[in-house]
Amino acid sequence: MINTDRLTHRLFTLGKIGAQSTGGITRLAFTKEDSDARLLVSSFMKEAGLIVREDEAGNLYGRREGTDPDAPVVLTGSHIDSVYDGGIFDGNLGVIGAIEALQVMNEQGIQTKHPIEVCAFKDEEGIRFCFSMTGSRAIAGILKPEDLEHQDKQGVSISQAMTMCGLDPAQIGKAARAAGSIKAHVELHIEQGRVLESNNLPLGIVTGINSSLWLHVTIEGEAGHAGATPMEIRHDSLSAAAEIILIVEEESRKTGTSVGTVGKIHAFPGGINIIPGKVEFSIDLRDINQETGDSLEQAILKRANEVCKKRGVKMTVEVLQRVPPVPCSSVVQNVIKDAFGKTGLPVFSLPSGAGHDSMHIARICPIGMIFVRSQKGISHNPEEWSTEEDCAAGVEVLYHTLINLAVESKS
Amino acid sequence: MINTDRLTHRLFTLGKIGAQSTGGITRLAFTKEDSDARLLVSSFMKEAGLIVREDEAGNLYGRREGTDPDAPVVLTGSHIDSVYDGGIFDGNLGVIGAIEALQVMNEQGIQTKHPIEVCAFKDEEGIRFCFSMTGSRAIAGILKPEDLEHQDKQGVSISQAMTMCGLDPAQIGKAARAAGSIKAHVELHIEQGRVLESNNLPLGIVTGINSSLWLHVTIEGEAGHAGATPMEIRHDSLSAAAEIILIVEEESRKTGTSVGTVGKIHAFPGGINIIPGKVEFSIDLRDINQETGDSLEQAILKRANEVCKKRGVKMTVEVLQRVPPVPCSSVVQNVIKDAFGKTGLPVFSLPSGAGHDSMHIARICPIGMIFVRSQKGISHNPEEWSTEEDCAAGVEVLYHTLINLAVESKS
Repeated sequence: MINTDRLTHRLFTLGKIGAQSTGGITRLAFTKEDSDARLLVSSFMKEAGLIVREDEAGNLYGRREGTDPDAPVVLTGSHIDSVYDGGIFDGNLGVIGAIEALQVMNEQGIQTKHPIEVCAFKDEEGIRFCFSMTGSRAIAGILKPEDLEHQDKQGVSISQAMTMCGLDPAQIGKAARAAGSIKAHVELHIEQGRVLESNNLPLGIVTGINSSLWLHVTIEGEAGHAGATPMEIRHDSLSAAAEIILIVEEESRKTGTSVGTVGKIHAFPGGINIIPGKVEFSIDLRDINQETGDSLEQAILKRANEVCKKRGVKMTVEVLQRVPPVPCSSVVQNVIKDAFGKTGLPVFSLPSGAGHDSMHIARICPIGMIFVRSQKGISHNPEEWSTEEDCAAGVEVLYHTLINLAVESKS
Repeated sequence: MINTDRLTHRLFTLGKIGAQSTGGITRLAFTKEDSDARLLVSSFMKEAGLIVREDEAGNLYGRREGTDPDAPVVLTGSHIDSVYDGGIFDGNLGVIGAIEALQVMNEQGIQTKHPIEVCAFKDEEGIRFCFSMTGSRAIAGILKPEDLEHQDKQGVSISQAMTMCGLDPAQIGKAARAAGSIKAHVELHIEQGRVLESNNLPLGIVTGINSSLWLHVTIEGEAGHAGATPMEIRHDSLSAAAEIILIVEEESRKTGTSVGTVGKIHAFPGGINIIPGKVEFSIDLRDINQETGDSLEQAILKRANEVCKKRGVKMTVEVLQRVPPVPCSSVVQNVIKDAFGKTGLPVFSLPSGAGHDSMHIARICPIGMIFVRSQKGISHNPEEWSTEEDCAAGVEVLYHTLINLAVESKS
């Protein structure tokens, strides 16, 4: 029923925008690549017979009308921005797959009581401004004016980038959707982990999304000549950072459920023959359990402080974002379960290790997520891959889920 | 006898070129700041009555004629380029101080048999191209054509930078000085360490310059999503690098005489929520003893390889430069010792932890170095400082040393 060729063709066409020589894509939000991708996705939405609009936060919507246009909307979608040199499935599958599901409904002449909207949420990855999911935060009504002051490396703020893209930051509040106006939200996404692969399953039902804490750490030591400063009088900020990087790893391993990552690091002044006087790095901590995540954070910071004390360097920690874990709605999980039944797939549930726009949307409506198997669990990487069959199976489950939620009304 | 005010005024005037808001200076070779500094130093040389010329490698000379113009030259000098945000004494004191010493000779009407030349060697620090001491290498005749192909971050080679500065890379061989044409070379320099300070002494005689090994290390692991890649299946290149950074520190401490530094590090792709797939960093290793330096290098690389094997990541090590330790001439050390006697200073000898142009000049003539006390041993840093009195004392010792080497001939 799903047009696998059309799905694949659209995914790969979209995957050409921001393509790198590595085979990956770099398509950061608020860039030329982002604009190009939005134009292309709009054209797909129109081909699918959807009514296209962009909201005040830059979220791109495609709407399929219901027999009751005033009934709460069934929402679906994901994002089309990427990390640096990421894969072509992350986010994109949830947008292109939802368009495909709605196009098939139109081809099948299916009517639903509730309108269904597919949304490409703005800036899920948050790479450029170190602040993620601007679009879904705006929809959930939790975006604060000061959030728009986050700056990129060149000192351009989200607010300024919005203006350059023709959006009015002062109007962003209008992107918020009222509680009750959305019946449910369902996101199709690749797993980005190896759980499904190791269980030899194409799809899974997500039970919840783990917590996410982003820290920006600055270590200030003492710069000095690399040749003439004896080891015993050094206050090397990079050596301190190295110890802390290993503590992040060790403590995250201990819990059994957490993940901890240092993805960014900069040493200053950065000369080959100068002891770094300052180092800045990021820490990304996640867990499905709030308490485990909290004690992980405390354990890391306690040991990091001990390292800094021992080494005579100063540590400053800034919280860039702190997002609690979000459970998926049991009602929506059951609807997805029924859809699994219709396609003959074995039901399998798992938590999401990664954050998704759905975690913010959960503030205004029940949410659910469908995971598609990732080869080797690789994501945020050019080698990210999911097979055509698995992607199509995911879209089929999404199709049945959306129809069930939107209440089919035979004409 | 030394004009301390003039010395200090010139040092501080030169220190304004490339001045940063931190109080430090950034004056990389082959930049506008470098050109400005050379013009200023040329004017000081002319004020001192010296004949100014630039050689084919960009070394700036000021010559004071001897009664026998064909007698081998007594060479003195240092450099006027800096690291990023470095101090105003490093290098500069050896050039400005030598100009002062020669100007005083002229004021005193002293004649010497041998001509004396002060040289500002080109690009001692080697920051921009990760290749140091281009000028003194050229004078020693050991600069290879391929050395000029080292590139900066923008892909500009030394060769291209030379052309932009009006130098002809094809002519660089002409900068070499014939063995026998230079009688001796004496360099005045700040210590950049704490040995003199802890001994409460203003000046020291250098016994030799330690070895210097610069490595560029690349660790290749596997990038992945920070939230969805369980700890146990990661191949995190930054965690591997962190272990190696600590090994560099630990092994360097063990020997008692070595110093080991990681000054540069870059993680790729550098996203806050991406496990780094690749990390590049530098290692700077130094020792006064060749064998200790060699075994330090071996110990570090052996353990680094074990780390990489354990973590399933790949390490590539490129040698950027390898300079053996260089002893100072005992003859020149004795001449400096006599000069200490003339000024009433206690004789004190120490090795140099940092590399200097003199180490290359040692290939064509006997060398000696005079160290001036550095406050807190801080160098390559805006807080680098030596007192007016210590600097003047250093210039006085240099003055007597040069007269002794150039053989005073009373008219």
